[in-house]
Amino acid sequence: MLINCVAYQDGRKLADIPVADISEWVQRPGCFVWVALRDATDAELLEMQEEFTLHDLAVEDARHGHQRPKIEEYGAMVFVVLHLLEMEHGEVRAGEIAIFVGPNFVLSVRNHSEHGFLGVRERCEREPELLRHGAGFVFYALMDSVVDRYFPLLDTFETELDDIESQIFEPGAARRNIERLYALKRRATVLRHAVAPALEVAGKLHGGRVPAVCALTQDYFRDVHDHLSRINAAIDGIRDTIGTAIQVNLSMVTIEESETTKRLAAWAAIFAVSTALAGIWGMNFEHMPELKWAWGYPMALAAITTAAGILFWRFKRAGWL
Amino acid sequence: MLINCVAYQDGRKLADIPVADISEWVQRPGCFVWVALRDATDAELLEMQEEFTLHDLAVEDARHGHQRPKIEEYGAMVFVVLHLLEMEHGEVRAGEIAIFVGPNFVLSVRNHSEHGFLGVRERCEREPELLRHGAGFVFYALMDSVVDRYFPLLDTFETELDDIESQIFEPGAARRNIERLYALKRRATVLRHAVAPALEVAGKLHGGRVPAVCALTQDYFRDVHDHLSRINAAIDGIRDTIGTAIQVNLSMVTIEESETTKRLAAWAAIFAVSTALAGIWGMNFEHMPELKWAWGYPMALAAITTAAGILFWRFKRAGWL
Amino acid sequence: MLINCVAYQDGRKLADIPVADISEWVQRPGCFVWVALRDATDAELLEMQEEFTLHDLAVEDARHGHQRPKIEEYGAMVFVVLHLLEMEHGEVRAGEIAIFVGPNFVLSVRNHSEHGFLGVRERCEREPELLRHGAGFVFYALMDSVVDRYFPLLDTFETELDDIESQIFEPGAARRNIERLYALKRRATVLRHAVAPALEVAGKLHGGRVPAVCALTQDYFRDVHDHLSRINAAIDGIRDTIGTAIQVNLSMVTIEESETTKRLAAWAAIFAVSTALAGIWGMNFEHMPELKWAWGYPMALAAITTAAGILFWRFKRAGWL
Amino acid sequence: MLINCVAYQDGRKLADIPVADISEWVQRPGCFVWVALRDATDAELLEMQEEFTLHDLAVEDARHGHQRPKIEEYGAMVFVVLHLLEMEHGEVRAGEIAIFVGPNFVLSVRNHSEHGFLGVRERCEREPELLRHGAGFVFYALMDSVVDRYFPLLDTFETELDDIESQIFEPGAARRNIERLYALKRRATVLRHAVAPALEVAGKLHGGRVPAVCALTQDYFRDVHDHLSRINAAIDGIRDTIGTAIQVNLSMVTIEESETTKRLAAWAAIFAVSTALAGIWGMNFEHMPELKWAWGYPMALAAITTAAGILFWRFKRAGWL
Amino acid sequence: MLINCVAYQDGRKLADIPVADISEWVQRPGCFVWVALRDATDAELLEMQEEFTLHDLAVEDARHGHQRPKIEEYGAMVFVVLHLLEMEHGEVRAGEIAIFVGPNFVLSVRNHSEHGFLGVRERCEREPELLRHGAGFVFYALMDSVVDRYFPLLDTFETELDDIESQIFEPGAARRNIERLYALKRRATVLRHAVAPALEVAGKLHGGRVPAVCALTQDYFRDVHDHLSRINAAIDGIRDTIGTAIQVNLSMVTIEESETTKRLAAWAAIFAVSTALAGIWGMNFEHMPELKWAWGYPMALAAITTAAGILFWRFKRAGWL
Repeated sequence: MLINCVAYQDGRKLADIPVADISEWVQRPGCFVWVALRDATDAELLEMQEEFTLHDLAVEDARHGHQRPKIEEYGAMVFVVLHLLEMEHGEVRAGEIAIFVGPNFVLSVRNHSEHGFLGVRERCEREPELLRHGAGFVFYALMDSVVDRYFPLLDTFETELDDIESQIFEPGAARRNIERLYALKRRATVLRHAVAPALEVAGKLHGGRVPAVCALTQDYFRDVHDHLSRINAAIDGIRDTIGTAIQVNLSMVTIEESETTKRLAAWAAIFAVSTALAGIWGMNFEHMPELKWAWGYPMALAAITTAAGILFWRFKRAGWL
Repeated sequence: MLINCVAYQDGRKLADIPVADISEWVQRPGCFVWVALRDATDAELLEMQEEFTLHDLAVEDARHGHQRPKIEEYGAMVFVVLHLLEMEHGEVRAGEIAIFVGPNFVLSVRNHSEHGFLGVRERCEREPELLRHGAGFVFYALMDSVVDRYFPLLDTFETELDDIESQIFEPGAARRNIERLYALKRRATVLRHAVAPALEVAGKLHGGRVPAVCALTQDYFRDVHDHLSRINAAIDGIRDTIGTAIQVNLSMVTIEESETTKRLAAWAAIFAVSTALAGIWGMNFEHMPELKWAWGYPMALAAITTAAGILFWRFKRAGWL
Repeated sequence: MLINCVAYQDGRKLADIPVADISEWVQRPGCFVWVALRDATDAELLEMQEEFTLHDLAVEDARHGHQRPKIEEYGAMVFVVLHLLEMEHGEVRAGEIAIFVGPNFVLSVRNHSEHGFLGVRERCEREPELLRHGAGFVFYALMDSVVDRYFPLLDTFETELDDIESQIFEPGAARRNIERLYALKRRATVLRHAVAPALEVAGKLHGGRVPAVCALTQDYFRDVHDHLSRINAAIDGIRDTIGTAIQVNLSMVTIEESETTKRLAAWAAIFAVSTALAGIWGMNFEHMPELKWAWGYPMALAAITTAAGILFWRFKRAGWL
Repeated sequence: MLINCVAYQDGRKLADIPVADISEWVQRPGCFVWVALRDATDAELLEMQEEFTLHDLAVEDARHGHQRPKIEEYGAMVFVVLHLLEMEHGEVRAGEIAIFVGPNFVLSVRNHSEHGFLGVRERCEREPELLRHGAGFVFYALMDSVVDRYFPLLDTFETELDDIESQIFEPGAARRNIERLYALKRRATVLRHAVAPALEVAGKLHGGRVPAVCALTQDYFRDVHDHLSRINAAIDGIRDTIGTAIQVNLSMVTIEESETTKRLAAWAAIFAVSTALAGIWGMNFEHMPELKWAWGYPMALAAITTAAGILFWRFKRAGWL
Repeated sequence: MLINCVAYQDGRKLADIPVADISEWVQRPGCFVWVALRDATDAELLEMQEEFTLHDLAVEDARHGHQRPKIEEYGAMVFVVLHLLEMEHGEVRAGEIAIFVGPNFVLSVRNHSEHGFLGVRERCEREPELLRHGAGFVFYALMDSVVDRYFPLLDTFETELDDIESQIFEPGAARRNIERLYALKRRATVLRHAVAPALEVAGKLHGGRVPAVCALTQDYFRDVHDHLSRINAAIDGIRDTIGTAIQVNLSMVTIEESETTKRLAAWAAIFAVSTALAGIWGMNFEHMPELKWAWGYPMALAAITTAAGILFWRFKRAGWL
């Protein structure tokens, strides 16, 4: 579905143009065309391929989707794929954006995502002095917008992790903690699969040899690269902490079980002593003098209570109860 | 066993040619020969070595088999080994293909695999404008076909992993989960041993210095490289998840055991109290007034039931039962 | 909030100057301006940007804060972010300092930190022969002061770790050890997130290609780099030791539990034997000759005591009790 | 002990020569000398040093032994150390070979190993067209022979690992599995210590800058390098699998223990109920009407059996028994 | 404390010289000065700084101590720090040596260590043909001596590890094994902290760009580098083995506990059956015909013994007892 198809010159919008005229506008010096598609059909992609003379393999990738984030250069054209991530009912949903950038055009194809870029276009049109940099700057603005939306996810993950950590030494919370840690690791992995290759992409857009179309906007791409490394380092931190937390959780379960075993042992001992004593006075020997005593029964009860009391006190002191 | 031996020119099939004539066809300018062998005998390999003047070490490798995927250059000739993987009764079976590529020939030797390449030849012959690129394009088409068949395996693994993950917090499923995770890790390792070195191979076929025969098809090999990195990253993800899942599974077993221990402790305590009380009233002292009471027995039963009930209620509240 | 705004020449302080005059002083040859801000407002930053003609992106970063430590070059200007760490009630609190360095100015913006740099300025003014090196030396002095304050944190961590290690084989200390190890790992991670990227920063300030403004002070930055690698290696050591200690702790818990189980088993056996024997003599058979014996009861007690004694002695010998 | 001392020219053996004449033969153009020593004495090494003018440090290393595999260049001479591994009573025994290669000589010194190289010499002498390559080829032939004997070890390890894996889910095999896995890891480590540095050695003998004496035999050394990487990858696989297997084994032990605990709990509950019921009817209250009933006893037995039966059935259904 | 201050020429000792004359002797062509200090005071260091014109930062490092091993170049001077390790009462004690090397001087400052270097000086003076290489050779001789004393430590560690490994499957040794493994890991870490950065140091003294003063002794430093890599690889091996051993030890404890639990369960079952049977015949029903039988009691005993015997035999067969 076509969202927008606009021609710009000197940082200002010239006109919404029909798709069929793109190839003419692209020829005009100092002018560039910015097209946005969403869940594009094969026919739309074919039309774009003809208007912009895109490479077969790049169009193929944009059509099939399910690519890793990546950057590829075909002559003067740059082809970039990035993941669009959204939280939905506690799950991370991954969409995709494919961006074709040439010296005088930008074509973005968004798939499986509600994440629109109208705001980017508006902001760009409000800052003509920056938009004057041309296709490279639009490319930066799109990528920056994609990366900016990774931060709220990261925040969600860090909040969730803090929340789990605050309960990690809570008795009885082990099962729930493990389940939450595991689910969090899965979600962090999705973000990582989006960020780590995107970091590589950004790394190729500043510093050493850079595609010609991005040469003037290197400082901006370094900024994006910097954001991505921050996210990446944060994810690594989260993953590392999850690993330790799972290990610590296992320790806590073992410690709790050990305490339960001790308490069980203590009570078992107390009752075993009582039962053994009662059993002895329940034997049927004829000559058991104490059975005849008037105070025999109270004394027996006292003996049992005392034995149990002494054990209770000793276990208490040893911290078993 | 010889499968095919065909000469091509300008992207079109000229003729099926006899093996003995290969060395002549290879001389003709603008013409290239594409030979496919399967489970080749020593005699066949020797004949090929003579016709194409292949290097001893490469022929040796093709004969012995059981190589890691690799690429080697002998002068203008490129020698590549790749693994062919097939699922068979839930096990991954590994075959091998050795490909010799020269400026005007491609020779593929397939071993221990049902995985044929007739489809590749047909598709190539249907697209003469691409086949015109010569031996380098045929080489790409073969490699692409090998790599494409790794994806279904990867899908099987990911489905299996999802299935295990959905049961990882299921009580009582621990043993089966561990067995499945271990088996899955083994299978993923076979795929990894095919993919990781193939990634190195593909990396040498685009970008920096590239063998002359592949110089014009670099964009295609970059595409193969990209597929391989996607698979490789996915396998790394699977392996990482398996590691965490085994750890989590161990935690779950420990947690379950801990819960069993608690329940055991609770019931043991309840019965121990009952038994101890019954033991006390079973003692043979002469002066135990309550034994004479008309309501002694019901009261004793009530006492025992009450004690057991209180314990039951407290354990219930503590979540032990 | 403005802390200081001073012009220097030949290593000596010329005058405290008003902010509005900065752009003039910066023009004078052989003269440089050193400005320190704290928790700067947007207006202050804007004024600085105009006086020093700073790059948008750098000022943006200084305003938003929460950056990873990093270095960025904008033409002849260097922009550096470092973390300021302070211990507060056993927690590590992270502030931030952003430093802009040009050929003839240094601007430091400190955020969320009590950690002042007046001492640095005083020391610099006492050593004019070093301050003569200009902005590069001031930059070094600031960075050195930041890094020097990491060492007390490291010492705290190492003392804490030594303390935990001295209790790691203590029976019953497992839960507390785990909690302390986990908390220590968190704190060490904060330091690591400050040090590891700062190490990268320092690495870019000596050795290979170095920003022009730091060219004469490379030996000093190598010293800072060396301090940072020392801290980094120490943190890695701490993290590694924590990992092993958690594992060892888990082992100790399991060993302790195993010992408890054995002791429980031993006592259970001793009382089970007593109860079983008492139960036998408590049966109501008519023809149980020993019940009639005069010495029956003492013999029964003796039998029970002997059986328990033998068990006790055997368990003692086996180390179960 | 001197094994052989032979002069070659044009790939053919000229003569067995006395050690004292070596320095003359080495001078003759187109001629090279191949000497083999075994457990050489200091005197023999000194003589060789004089005849071949070897470097002090290299001779020192050959004398002391216990080196890591390594390659060192001294001017035009190459000095290589490799490990010779043999299985002996299930243990891996490590010997050593030091090889000195010059433009017209090869000297091999074998220590602590039964592993002879007469076969290598015979094979070389049978292939004069290859031996014509001179000292570099002899060096390759020796190294290839050393590496080839690593494969049977690897096979032993893989067979052993398969064998352990087939028993890893066997109940009751845990202790033995752990012992075998640990022993296997030790043995694999010995092989790894031989292979990993040898891989580095081989890597320096093909590709980039190569010692002059090996320049013509690069393709052969690439083949050796390839064999070594195959072994290295296989060892990494074995080590990784051992790690997972130990972890899985621990899980299996915990699962088995958990099952034992459940069964124990179940039987304990069944008997505790029986004992408690029997204890109640064993109380000495005067007014316990059921004790007087004619069918009291059979009913009590029935009650006990029914209670036990119900528990048994429920535990059976829950999979605890 | 000054140990030695000697001038050398052409590999021979000229004279013991007073410290005050150093700056003159250093000027003489072909002559070099070798000074050794121990636990130097600030005054001594200051004097040395003046005589040799050393860099501030290097002298600072030598004074403060507690540096990581490192190498730094200040113009033509090289400054190196190495750790001196000694075993003392089973603990590793770390001292330090700082070495300043210039074109015609060597100054060594030893701190917190009994480890003297008189032997090095004597050996050098006995080999004038080597000492003729000048300051670079003395530097090598000192470094070689430091590194050589790491080997006995490594041997101690490996012996200790072998000793622990021989007991790792011993029942009941788990706690002691863990404690020893943990202590060994700590000691190995100290050695590693000395060796790993020293390896970096040695790596900068041969091969690529080398400080001028060491240019002629590169082969010797390669030898030192080789020793250090051997030690480093051995420590890595030790650490890896310790990790596995701790894991295996944990498995052994769990296995042992599992066996204890089984034995406990078995005996508990045997006594529970006895007690339950005795309880049944201890009930007070009036109509229990077997209680009247003459052989009732022996039959009951027989029944109890038989039941216990059958259980014992079954548990024995199942390997629980």
